[in-house]
Amino acid sequence: MKSTIGVGLIGTGYMGKCHALAWNGVKAVFGDGPRPVLAHLAEVDGQTARRRADEFGFERATGDWRELIADPEVEVVSITTPNAFHAEMAIAALEAGKHVWCEKPMAVALVDAERMAAAAHRSGRVAILGYNYIQNPLIRQIGHVLGQGTIGRVNHVRLEMDEDFMADPEALFYWKSEASSGYGALDDFGVHPLSLLQILFGPVARVFAHLSKPYADRPTADGARRSVETFDIASILFELSGGISGVMALDRSAWGRKGRIALQIFGSKGTITFDQERFNEFQLYVTSDKPAEQGFRTILAAPQHPPYDRFIPAPGHGLGFNDLKIIECHELLRRIAGEPARVIDFDTGLGIERAVHAMARSHREGRWINLDQEA
Amino acid sequence: MKSTIGVGLIGTGYMGKCHALAWNGVKAVFGDGPRPVLAHLAEVDGQTARRRADEFGFERATGDWRELIADPEVEVVSITTPNAFHAEMAIAALEAGKHVWCEKPMAVALVDAERMAAAAHRSGRVAILGYNYIQNPLIRQIGHVLGQGTIGRVNHVRLEMDEDFMADPEALFYWKSEASSGYGALDDFGVHPLSLLQILFGPVARVFAHLSKPYADRPTADGARRSVETFDIASILFELSGGISGVMALDRSAWGRKGRIALQIFGSKGTITFDQERFNEFQLYVTSDKPAEQGFRTILAAPQHPPYDRFIPAPGHGLGFNDLKIIECHELLRRIAGEPARVIDFDTGLGIERAVHAMARSHREGRWINLDQEA
Amino acid sequence: MKSTIGVGLIGTGYMGKCHALAWNGVKAVFGDGPRPVLAHLAEVDGQTARRRADEFGFERATGDWRELIADPEVEVVSITTPNAFHAEMAIAALEAGKHVWCEKPMAVALVDAERMAAAAHRSGRVAILGYNYIQNPLIRQIGHVLGQGTIGRVNHVRLEMDEDFMADPEALFYWKSEASSGYGALDDFGVHPLSLLQILFGPVARVFAHLSKPYADRPTADGARRSVETFDIASILFELSGGISGVMALDRSAWGRKGRIALQIFGSKGTITFDQERFNEFQLYVTSDKPAEQGFRTILAAPQHPPYDRFIPAPGHGLGFNDLKIIECHELLRRIAGEPARVIDFDTGLGIERAVHAMARSHREGRWINLDQEA
Amino acid sequence: MKSTIGVGLIGTGYMGKCHALAWNGVKAVFGDGPRPVLAHLAEVDGQTARRRADEFGFERATGDWRELIADPEVEVVSITTPNAFHAEMAIAALEAGKHVWCEKPMAVALVDAERMAAAAHRSGRVAILGYNYIQNPLIRQIGHVLGQGTIGRVNHVRLEMDEDFMADPEALFYWKSEASSGYGALDDFGVHPLSLLQILFGPVARVFAHLSKPYADRPTADGARRSVETFDIASILFELSGGISGVMALDRSAWGRKGRIALQIFGSKGTITFDQERFNEFQLYVTSDKPAEQGFRTILAAPQHPPYDRFIPAPGHGLGFNDLKIIECHELLRRIAGEPARVIDFDTGLGIERAVHAMARSHREGRWINLDQEA
Repeated sequence: MKSTIGVGLIGTGYMGKCHALAWNGVKAVFGDGPRPVLAHLAEVDGQTARRRADEFGFERATGDWRELIADPEVEVVSITTPNAFHAEMAIAALEAGKHVWCEKPMAVALVDAERMAAAAHRSGRVAILGYNYIQNPLIRQIGHVLGQGTIGRVNHVRLEMDEDFMADPEALFYWKSEASSGYGALDDFGVHPLSLLQILFGPVARVFAHLSKPYADRPTADGARRSVETFDIASILFELSGGISGVMALDRSAWGRKGRIALQIFGSKGTITFDQERFNEFQLYVTSDKPAEQGFRTILAAPQHPPYDRFIPAPGHGLGFNDLKIIECHELLRRIAGEPARVIDFDTGLGIERAVHAMARSHREGRWINLDQEA
Repeated sequence: MKSTIGVGLIGTGYMGKCHALAWNGVKAVFGDGPRPVLAHLAEVDGQTARRRADEFGFERATGDWRELIADPEVEVVSITTPNAFHAEMAIAALEAGKHVWCEKPMAVALVDAERMAAAAHRSGRVAILGYNYIQNPLIRQIGHVLGQGTIGRVNHVRLEMDEDFMADPEALFYWKSEASSGYGALDDFGVHPLSLLQILFGPVARVFAHLSKPYADRPTADGARRSVETFDIASILFELSGGISGVMALDRSAWGRKGRIALQIFGSKGTITFDQERFNEFQLYVTSDKPAEQGFRTILAAPQHPPYDRFIPAPGHGLGFNDLKIIECHELLRRIAGEPARVIDFDTGLGIERAVHAMARSHREGRWINLDQEA
Repeated sequence: MKSTIGVGLIGTGYMGKCHALAWNGVKAVFGDGPRPVLAHLAEVDGQTARRRADEFGFERATGDWRELIADPEVEVVSITTPNAFHAEMAIAALEAGKHVWCEKPMAVALVDAERMAAAAHRSGRVAILGYNYIQNPLIRQIGHVLGQGTIGRVNHVRLEMDEDFMADPEALFYWKSEASSGYGALDDFGVHPLSLLQILFGPVARVFAHLSKPYADRPTADGARRSVETFDIASILFELSGGISGVMALDRSAWGRKGRIALQIFGSKGTITFDQERFNEFQLYVTSDKPAEQGFRTILAAPQHPPYDRFIPAPGHGLGFNDLKIIECHELLRRIAGEPARVIDFDTGLGIERAVHAMARSHREGRWINLDQEA
Repeated sequence: MKSTIGVGLIGTGYMGKCHALAWNGVKAVFGDGPRPVLAHLAEVDGQTARRRADEFGFERATGDWRELIADPEVEVVSITTPNAFHAEMAIAALEAGKHVWCEKPMAVALVDAERMAAAAHRSGRVAILGYNYIQNPLIRQIGHVLGQGTIGRVNHVRLEMDEDFMADPEALFYWKSEASSGYGALDDFGVHPLSLLQILFGPVARVFAHLSKPYADRPTADGARRSVETFDIASILFELSGGISGVMALDRSAWGRKGRIALQIFGSKGTITFDQERFNEFQLYVTSDKPAEQGFRTILAAPQHPPYDRFIPAPGHGLGFNDLKIIECHELLRRIAGEPARVIDFDTGLGIERAVHAMARSHREGRWINLDQEA
């Protein structure tokens, strides 16, 4: 294996910094794999790019992302720009022979996501999406518990994803309320719980959705009010293969919820629950405990839940949100090295986006949509 | 006001004992109203009836409930028999000029519920249903918080009701898996969250439901297996008047859940959550707290939440499930005395049962059902 | 066994009503034992006594408690007056041949508690104290778990008891701040955690205590301030027999705590925790679970934890604070009937009060006090 | 300010890796300050040193820590070796003109800690200790809440620190059970809660301690058993200046506790609680909320709690244990740059160790020890 890998980073906002921290930390945390060489950083203008490159430890900076993609030292490109740019950048990077690590979702329009998946196929390069929540060692453990049959055959699943950044009805209208940004909570949020379903159970089979608006309009900077075009709330019924029934509720205007992704998995021998707001623990109920002593166990993340052990040798000390990205980065490097890796690549990601668009169609048509027929 | 009221009790199982405890305790707890005279108790046979009458403190016992209804000393009848008997008994009692306190739901078939409501109208007597969860002082407080506008205008509601008495796939087939018992979780459970919606928000406007079976069949006593005819899981989308969107999930095969009725109410200025498994507390998030100090408050039941104060003068000491029935009993006595009372009478209860049947129809037809059109 | 038992009740405040509710409910809940005949009620004046007798269902009422004790129909006397009256009333009742159910603590002065215990011995009657927290079915279950060795050999115990009724520094000075009422949190609260220690582990062996005052003075009605004479906070180290070390913290000025009695029991194979504010659940950690799946189980009260089943046949529905008194009443009746009973009688109660006085002495002398030497 | 700073790291175990991750990440997280140049790493042998240097990104490696200290490129030295080596290494580094970042505690013997503090004074260099828990943005927020008077005047404090790495009685005897390692939980753990007390309230004034052994002996590799010489449990009463009373309980054999550091702070207007096992939240109870709506608020870490915002722009997403070390590293760099910094330097750290030794003396002598008299 090569001892280094050249990294390019496009975008330095929320997720851009998160990628930068991952590239800075991955080798020290895991000890194995190539050393990332932070080669090139692109931002909207050269000056911002240079400042961020200094902060994040990148060698070169540019205001033109095409320069970064043309840089022969760059072997893998982190794309963390707004969703509208993902397709163009990812396809260009893949065509230039780079591996791509692109933030989710793939694109606003399904056709663009399809073009991205096709480009990945043509290129033969690794192309994965930034679904960091699946990297939580406890989500991995939940998958292991399910695989062992500890809670028996699963028959019902519930997911909730809620935050409150759109909860203030008097916050100024901005692009997330415009139809051009997508459906609203459905694509903004829904892809995350869908990524958890995907990694734990595989693709959804059919969906029924209802989208709603908590606020009909919002104030604009000039003192007027503008109609809200997106749906901050989405309520979904679904079925997984094998007839597992499910409920999914999404709300980006849910006061008090900051990063809630609540999961409930019911099986014939037990139940698992999890909440991302306390993501260093999950709950497990099993019927093998004595009847008078049965209860939901709160299990704290520990070295027994790899790769927690790569971060901290002591149990219960807690990983952070940014650590999940370091794990994701390491899985990307494993995939690039041809090793088995826990990633959502462009193919699988396309399936998730198809489910989102099927949900939107279900809402419009007021009926169940079968995903197989949509594919 | 008369200083006593004659009580008859039909049925002495789970709810029968609960009624008996309420009739024994209501005067001592509240201090006001008539003293219940425990006049007559009916059970399936005279011997059982006599034993229970002795335990519960009733004067007379009978194996024939019609005798109880004919007893001139009996002024109000508690009906706590299996659902299939409610209609006949309640109608007979009302026609005999008795007030009726009947356990929920009214009946398996909607037509029977309609007959019960009609009988109540004709009789001019008080006829209420045993929706005890609405009597929790904290549910009353939640209503008060909503009424004060503390969390602003409500835009989204979620409810879950889960228990695990049907969770064991190897438990023997019994009547709750037979179609003659109803739909399954939908009517067995759904009426409870619907009673909370009713008391807090009024009737639901439209519904979409999906029913599912965790287990296709169950063992029978003779070693064979029999197909399950009811749905232990129900997943429902709904809308309240004013466009409030909602999600309701019901599961009577949810391992580890013992008496969960979880409620989440999202408004433009805050959020309320509640779980019946910890029914002496609720959570309130409001945006009027300082930004760096905002969080869900866990509020313990206290004398500030009447009628908690009638049970315990100290805060945080906890009411019990049976205490809710004592409150319900007191509200019944208030209604009989012509005072304002917090009860679900047969008319309102009929609305709840219509919603349940509309949900079942929605499941069969795979489409939204508008409740107005159903009425 | 006699089919009835005549009951007298002295005092109708917080605990008086609690006793009344227990006497009203015990037969209906448990089904067995004699039917309580509510014969006589005493209060400070005849008018109040008559009103309460009507509310609570007592036949006769008096403003002179000695009349009640002289009543030949009264076989057992509930004493729920302020602590200063316990000794005189209990001794008089015992000498009149009545059984006694007296609220805790026995008396302000140790010498009075000793007189009470001596009177009980002389009388040959049953004399027990109102330590209701030990009656919680889950405390019983915790004892069972300990007895089974599930958490191995216990090596460390922590208890906290906190409420906030003395937390407001601007609340008017009242008798609980006067030295004549006792030490403060130590006797007001400390006896409760000590009753739990007693029932689970037996008597404490030695103690070290520190008492403190959150507020030096409090306002009086005339606008002045008066020095506080009691200690609202008590911090205690102790040892149980066998060298089990312990910590106990008591605070009746702890804002936000309403009825907290938190218990942590550490053993060689596991840990148990409990909090009275959520007294329908306890937590159990055992090392026999798989390492990656170990965690504190939250176990909800259920019919498997007798006598929960006597109140409710379904798990997780929750007992109330007043239900604990009904259980205590039933245990009293069992003791009177000569059956094994879970009670703290005057002898055992005296041991608890000795521990309290030893703690106060430790505070004054700044040294460990050995309970054996004190006895 | 110089744009870089040369870093040496001695030790690469638990804390060594934690320091390495901090040095790798601090510039990218905070954006300001010098860029750390990872110059030199020392381990027990050259081969291990070279492997770790490659993993952690250090330029040079050595099996002789004196070489590292002699390296002119090294400006600051991270010392993460076992406690017994701290004094020698820290003094050598300070005498060589390096800044020192040493893990806690300073030394086993108080005299060594005193020598370290003296060396720091002589050198004029920055010398700080690795008390990472004080760096939690929510501990900073708690300090801010206290400073604002939100909970009024504090009158009582409780701390608990519990883990279970010594909980298995059948785990082999190892050096932590030898007297040469120190007192046991007292110095192993106690310094952490003391660092929180220090940062929030200043030094403790007097202490009373009791140390205990859960297990008298432990098995050895040869099948024998060896007496345990240290105390895995410590129970402490203390007073802070101004008469604030406190309780501290430490247990490193507490099954199920993984990283618990529980804090309860009671004031005249409210209460604060915190638990390190859920260190991205704290609880606040204030009396300014309406009586019927008062409750403990659970406040999630958010950008309003700096420097959380440097890691994640969204609230409630969660920092990790290693992130606290990055904050500590940044505070060290600020102190080196002459800016105000939140650190525990050798002087303050010496005060903490004096408190620990006073506690041990209190245990031996069975009396209160006044810290002023000890200093």
